[in-house]
Amino acid sequence: MTLIDHLNWRHATKAYDPNKKVSKEHIDKIVEAARLAPTSSGLQPFRIAVISDQAVKDQLAEGAFNPECMRECSHVLVFAAWDEYTPQRIDSIYNKTTDERDMPRGRFDRYTDMIKGMYASQTKEDHFIHASKQAYIAFGFALAQAAELRVDSTPAEGFDNAMVDRILDLPGKGLRSVLVLYVGYRDAARDWLAPMKKVRNDTAAFVLNY
Amino acid sequence: MTLIDHLNWRHATKAYDPNKKVSKEHIDKIVEAARLAPTSSGLQPFRIAVISDQAVKDQLAEGAFNPECMRECSHVLVFAAWDEYTPQRIDSIYNKTTDERDMPRGRFDRYTDMIKGMYASQTKEDHFIHASKQAYIAFGFALAQAAELRVDSTPAEGFDNAMVDRILDLPGKGLRSVLVLYVGYRDAARDWLAPMKKVRNDTAAFVLNY
Repeated sequence: MTLIDHLNWRHATKAYDPNKKVSKEHIDKIVEAARLAPTSSGLQPFRIAVISDQAVKDQLAEGAFNPECMRECSHVLVFAAWDEYTPQRIDSIYNKTTDERDMPRGRFDRYTDMIKGMYASQTKEDHFIHASKQAYIAFGFALAQAAELRVDSTPAEGFDNAMVDRILDLPGKGLRSVLVLYVGYRDAARDWLAPMKKVRNDTAAFVLNY
Repeated sequence: MTLIDHLNWRHATKAYDPNKKVSKEHIDKIVEAARLAPTSSGLQPFRIAVISDQAVKDQLAEGAFNPECMRECSHVLVFAAWDEYTPQRIDSIYNKTTDERDMPRGRFDRYTDMIKGMYASQTKEDHFIHASKQAYIAFGFALAQAAELRVDSTPAEGFDNAMVDRILDLPGKGLRSVLVLYVGYRDAARDWLAPMKKVRNDTAAFVLNY
């Protein structure tokens, strides 16, 4: 089986069996795929909140556009991005990078000074939008990993971000919610999208050749 | 080999061997992975420009932060997003969806009316940012697919978007450039990042458990 097979297999699951749980091993792999994603300048400006506690899921369901998925899926993964780029955050990851590569700290100062200057000229909202985009690449990796494991999932952008942030105390961690990934196993009887044909733009319309 | 193996294998290639070309079969698979990506409301608001023509790559190199990658890689994939959401574009994809699923056109009118209203309340720039984010998920799929095929790649956000748009005539197609993916085969002697340890946030810091 190849990645293309996995991507053809997956769909946005519309209903979960509340009695079927995803193993810790599988959740760890989905998170690991996201952790390995590339990010702009290697800053990795996002984290993943993994919610298995039913009481927390029930609370989050109040702010979800698909509350049944939130309540009934096995785990909820909230991708949350940095609320801003700061010199300290940039230094922190570059210090980790040089330490792990046995290079002197400051080895990349010319580069980090450049990006610090660039971010200093932007608003916090610009930062958050940019950091959010990085989380979307990792979200793609997580979706692909869930599919490889034949774990059902539902990508979701639509939810009450302020409520989710508050329930998970994300502002206290310098984070804001971006994306939700429901994971679990479908309830075939209620998952109306499962039997439907996947529809995508035709390749001829999707690709522009030069 | 699993997805995790592929993601550990890949890195942002810093120099390409200009004499090694990626096969059409492999390029097609990388594009196909991106085509299969999920998007908000299924609108698929992005396209991929595949550039193999050396003269076009040379022109684009003028607007690239890494002009050598642009010139020397095998193919350049430019992910370009819709410049706005319009009722016509939304209807077009929903008509295709209902046609392919043997459902009557208009079956999803209540939903599409809702999203048309939502987008009508936003600016064109809001639309473009949102459409761009969808392209990042597909970009993740393309990166993973290239890695599975052991095709080297380099994700890039930093380039002169206006110049790239102009060279590829993207505005004439209702598109704006978002991301560039260089693909090809590394020049091991000049690809300084290849031998270095991949550094990511530790899992314990990356994951918040609830």
